[in-house]
Amino acid sequence: MDESIEDLGGGMTIIQKVSGFRFGMDAVLLAHFTKVKSRDHIIDLGTGTGIIPILLAGLYRDISVIGVDIQEEYCDMAHRSVALNNMENTIDIKCMDLKKAPADLGYEIYDLVVSNPPYRKVNAGEISKYDDKAIARHEVMCNLEDVVKSASRLLKYGGRFSMVHLPERFAEIVSTLRQYNLEIKRTRLVYPDTRSDANLILLECIKGGNPGMTVSPPLIVSNADKTYTDEIIKIYRGINVL
Amino acid sequence: MDESIEDLGGGMTIIQKVSGFRFGMDAVLLAHFTKVKSRDHIIDLGTGTGIIPILLAGLYRDISVIGVDIQEEYCDMAHRSVALNNMENTIDIKCMDLKKAPADLGYEIYDLVVSNPPYRKVNAGEISKYDDKAIARHEVMCNLEDVVKSASRLLKYGGRFSMVHLPERFAEIVSTLRQYNLEIKRTRLVYPDTRSDANLILLECIKGGNPGMTVSPPLIVSNADKTYTDEIIKIYRGINVL
Repeated sequence: MDESIEDLGGGMTIIQKVSGFRFGMDAVLLAHFTKVKSRDHIIDLGTGTGIIPILLAGLYRDISVIGVDIQEEYCDMAHRSVALNNMENTIDIKCMDLKKAPADLGYEIYDLVVSNPPYRKVNAGEISKYDDKAIARHEVMCNLEDVVKSASRLLKYGGRFSMVHLPERFAEIVSTLRQYNLEIKRTRLVYPDTRSDANLILLECIKGGNPGMTVSPPLIVSNADKTYTDEIIKIYRGINVL
Repeated sequence: MDESIEDLGGGMTIIQKVSGFRFGMDAVLLAHFTKVKSRDHIIDLGTGTGIIPILLAGLYRDISVIGVDIQEEYCDMAHRSVALNNMENTIDIKCMDLKKAPADLGYEIYDLVVSNPPYRKVNAGEISKYDDKAIARHEVMCNLEDVVKSASRLLKYGGRFSMVHLPERFAEIVSTLRQYNLEIKRTRLVYPDTRSDANLILLECIKGGNPGMTVSPPLIVSNADKTYTDEIIKIYRGINVL
């Protein structure tokens, strides 16, 4: 069987495919970056293995998280990971197209939407070549606008949308968010090391928020000697993934 | 007289007001960030003391720079600084409203527009209170859209616009730039130190450019012990201001 059960620390485990899409540092950084309040009703758009709901449920009490994914085999794994962690009361996995999430799960009733969406555009002609791993990484089944549109429709006025994406698409991201009444309030750039271009951007929006954002201190992943920085180690420990 | 002549190093000098607006690190960082090509025809919108044209003329050969400012006393100082540096053949100072720059100086004929504009919004009712220093810092005489609109009209198709601004206004900046067909291609965040939010953003756009930008390595101003970082010292030295 092409699966492994991995220890997330703190008593948590997650099922992943060995050769398929595996959760990455981006999901861990997003879970850490996202501010969650007690009693938040949360949706994770494109949950994959369910890593973000599981990390959030490990960090916060009194929340509910719905993880949405279109790929049945990932939903099945996520569902079993939720059961392994005894998180059935907190996390619900729904196998559906995230474009249909507002119609099926409710308009404007959620406090927080999180998403680690596919980052890369595809050329329409190439879609047939894509496998399950590519669906998680490329905009085969949904694009940036689909994710943002669903997030905006799911959120209450004043609700928060938290996402990780590529810095290279930031100008497009800003335009798309504003088109759907989501205003960026807080961002953080992730740099592989102090001499490299940023390779991820974390961002938090408020639905109906006023313009005005902060750019948090740089998040540097590796020291000059290639070891993880203290902050990365602290994040992984805090989130029970080390 | 409320003026001082200051040594910029490398044989260059600049006249500044003692109690008025004085050039800051933002101008120095913008001059360093901006990529200039041989034979570029350049306009600096809101040139103030003329610091950016003088720094660029010190760094690059075979360029021409027009510095535009609305405040007569600053234009007069800038003009005298240009003469002191024997840069009359390279730099022209024009005392005019930057909103009128395209009509007076020519549409779509420049290779590069640079600007260190006023950063902060003002409440309309408060404008009468503003003095010359405030005009350089607050959007009294022109706002973000005025600067971007003029930049776009002055630039050739494929021309570059280089600006420094506040990160808190970055979402607005992106929207305004796109409205005037300027696409951000390269940005750099400036952080006072590794633990602080970014306080400046440097950005370079291409008129008619395709979406897709890079975020260059973080520019950290101070070490933990409050001394300047090696990179800042190198920039100031490279630009002959130390």
